[in-house]
Amino acid sequence: MTDQPISTDALIIGAGPVGLFAIFELGLLDIKCHVVDILDKPGGQCAELYPEKPIYDIPALPEVSGQELTDRLLEQAKPFSPQYHFGHMVTGLERRPDGNFAVTTDGGLAFDAKVVVIAAGGGSFQPKKPPIPGIDAYENSSVFYSVRKMEAFRGRDILIVGGGDSALDWTINLAPLANSLTLLHRRDQFRASPDSVNKMWALTDEGKVTFRLGQVTGLKGEGGQLEAVTARGPDGEFEVACNTMLPFFGLTMKLGPVADWGLNLNENLLPVDTEKFETSEPGIFAIGDINWYPGKLKLILSGFHEAALMAQQAFRIVHPDERLVFQYTTSSTKLQKKLGVA
Amino acid sequence: MTDQPISTDALIIGAGPVGLFAIFELGLLDIKCHVVDILDKPGGQCAELYPEKPIYDIPALPEVSGQELTDRLLEQAKPFSPQYHFGHMVTGLERRPDGNFAVTTDGGLAFDAKVVVIAAGGGSFQPKKPPIPGIDAYENSSVFYSVRKMEAFRGRDILIVGGGDSALDWTINLAPLANSLTLLHRRDQFRASPDSVNKMWALTDEGKVTFRLGQVTGLKGEGGQLEAVTARGPDGEFEVACNTMLPFFGLTMKLGPVADWGLNLNENLLPVDTEKFETSEPGIFAIGDINWYPGKLKLILSGFHEAALMAQQAFRIVHPDERLVFQYTTSSTKLQKKLGVA
Repeated sequence: MTDQPISTDALIIGAGPVGLFAIFELGLLDIKCHVVDILDKPGGQCAELYPEKPIYDIPALPEVSGQELTDRLLEQAKPFSPQYHFGHMVTGLERRPDGNFAVTTDGGLAFDAKVVVIAAGGGSFQPKKPPIPGIDAYENSSVFYSVRKMEAFRGRDILIVGGGDSALDWTINLAPLANSLTLLHRRDQFRASPDSVNKMWALTDEGKVTFRLGQVTGLKGEGGQLEAVTARGPDGEFEVACNTMLPFFGLTMKLGPVADWGLNLNENLLPVDTEKFETSEPGIFAIGDINWYPGKLKLILSGFHEAALMAQQAFRIVHPDERLVFQYTTSSTKLQKKLGVA
Repeated sequence: MTDQPISTDALIIGAGPVGLFAIFELGLLDIKCHVVDILDKPGGQCAELYPEKPIYDIPALPEVSGQELTDRLLEQAKPFSPQYHFGHMVTGLERRPDGNFAVTTDGGLAFDAKVVVIAAGGGSFQPKKPPIPGIDAYENSSVFYSVRKMEAFRGRDILIVGGGDSALDWTINLAPLANSLTLLHRRDQFRASPDSVNKMWALTDEGKVTFRLGQVTGLKGEGGQLEAVTARGPDGEFEVACNTMLPFFGLTMKLGPVADWGLNLNENLLPVDTEKFETSEPGIFAIGDINWYPGKLKLILSGFHEAALMAQQAFRIVHPDERLVFQYTTSSTKLQKKLGVA
C-alpha cells in the first residue's frame, strides 16, 4: 500500500460517459475529482464494446460513435483538471473515523475522499478466463490477464494466447523485452487492426516472434511456476516451452467488489433516491447503469441527469459552510470563468 | 373553430429543446406527434432569448449556441415527421368522453390527442404591452401585438412601434400592402440585423415608409377604432394619423392558460412523479422547466431525461395492447430502421 492516501473532494469510480460528465457537474460546484477505472482508457463500455458503433439517442447528437462521445466528454471535463487512474480496480471502500471515505485499489492506490461517486456501469470489466484445467494455480505467478508493468516481463519466455487487439498489441510491445515470445491463436485471422497484424507478421519474419496455430489444452509446471503449455493444432498436439502465459480472451462484465462494500443491493443494482442519487450510505452516490429507482432506464442520458442532481448533494457534503447558488453556464460569468471561457 | 379535430397520438405543447427531444423519444416508441408553440419558430427560450449565446452544460457539447442546439434537435426529431404548428397558443385542454384529450388553440386549431405533453418551459412567451393609457380598448380591433395573417393589414394606415427585429421585419413586409406605414422608435439606432435596417432606410428613401423619432404618449379614437396616435419626440409632441398600431416591445414569459386546465399547481409549476413525469391528470405529462419534483433542477439536460422516462408511460396509453421492449439505438436494427439509418 502507499504511504499517504491521495486526498480528494470526490472519488469517481468509473470513467465511462457518466463518470466523465460527473467530473463536469462536480467541477461547476468547485468539487475536485480523482477518477479510477479498471480499463486502460476512458469511455467505459462505449470505448470498450462499441468505440466505432454509432449511438443515436444522445440529445442533440443525432449520430455519435462511442469514441467521439468519450472524446467530447473528456474535452468538457478538462477545465476541471481531473486526475485519472486507469488500470485500477477499486477494491476497498470504507468510512473513516472522520467521516471521509478510505478507498483502495488493487494496484496499491489509496484515497481519502469526502464523497464517492459510483459510476461503474454494469460493474467491472474483468478478463475472461480461458477454460484450462488447473489455470488458477498459475495466476499472478506465471499466468497474467493484463500487463501492469512491462518491465516485469523482461527476459521471460512468453506465450501470448488470443487474436484480438490486446493479444497483438502486447505481442508487438513485449517482443523486444522477452527472451522468447510465441503467439498462439486458433486461426490465422485476427480481430485486430490491420496495422498491428502487419507488424506482428514482420516480427515473425525477423524471428523475434513465433506464431503457432492452435488452442491450449493444458499447463505443465510446479508450485505455480509454468514450464510449458500443451496445445492442439491442425497437425495434432504440440508443446510450447514458456514460463509466462498471457491469455487475452476479451473482457466480461462482473459486479465485482461493489458487492462487498456493505451497500444495499437489489439484483446487483444500487437502489438510490431520485433527488440526490445517494446509496444507502450517505456520501456514497450511484449514477448511471449501476443504480436503480422506479422508472429507471439504462440510458447514458439518464446517467447525465443523475450526475447533475447528485452534484448538488455532494456540494453540501464537500462545502458544508458555503451556500449553493444555482446558476446557468449561459449567463453566469462565475461559471464561465471556471470553464475558462470568460 | 375547425370542423374536424386533428387526430394525433401525442400533442406536445412547446417546441423548445425539451419538446423537440420528446418527439424523438416518443418516435422511438412509435408515438406520432403534433407540436404547438406560441413562437413563430422552434427553439423556445434558447432560440428566443439567446440564439447566439453559448451554452456549456449540455453533455458532450462543450459549447453550443441556442440556435445550434435547436437545429441539432430538429435534425434528430426529423425521422419521425412531427407536425409543427407555430404561432399558436394552446388555450383549451380537457378530457373527452372517450378518454382522449380535446386541445384547442387561440388560432382556431383543434386536436384529439391520446396523450398531452406539456413542455412549456416558463409558460407562454407573450408580447410586452406598452404602458399607454387606454390601450386595452383598442386591442384586437386596431392594436395588434403579432401578425397572424398579413392580408388582414392590406390597405391600412399602420403605425409600427419599436426598434428590434420584429418591428423592422414587419415594417419591411407590410410596407407593400399598407396604405401608409410609419415606423416610430425612441432613437435612430436599432437592435435588428443590419440588413433589415438597410432595407427599412431604403423604403423611407422610396417614400414607402415614414420614420419618426419618438415615444407614444396617447391614443385617439372611438369604439375601439383608432384614428391617431400622439407621440413625443426631440422636437416636442406630434400626431400620427393611423387606424392600426403594431407595438413590438419584446416578449415576456407568463404561465398563461396552463393555470386554467384543472391541473395541480405549486408556485406556478406542475408537480410530477419521477417515474412517469405525469401531472395530477393521467395522460397529461409535464417535462422540462415547467415541472417540479424533489431535487428538480431547471436544466435542459433534466428535461431530456424526463422526456425519455415520460415516453415509456405514454407508450402504455397510446399502444395499450403492445408490449414495451426496451432497446438501444446502438444495437437494435428495429430502432435503426425507424431512424432511417439501417
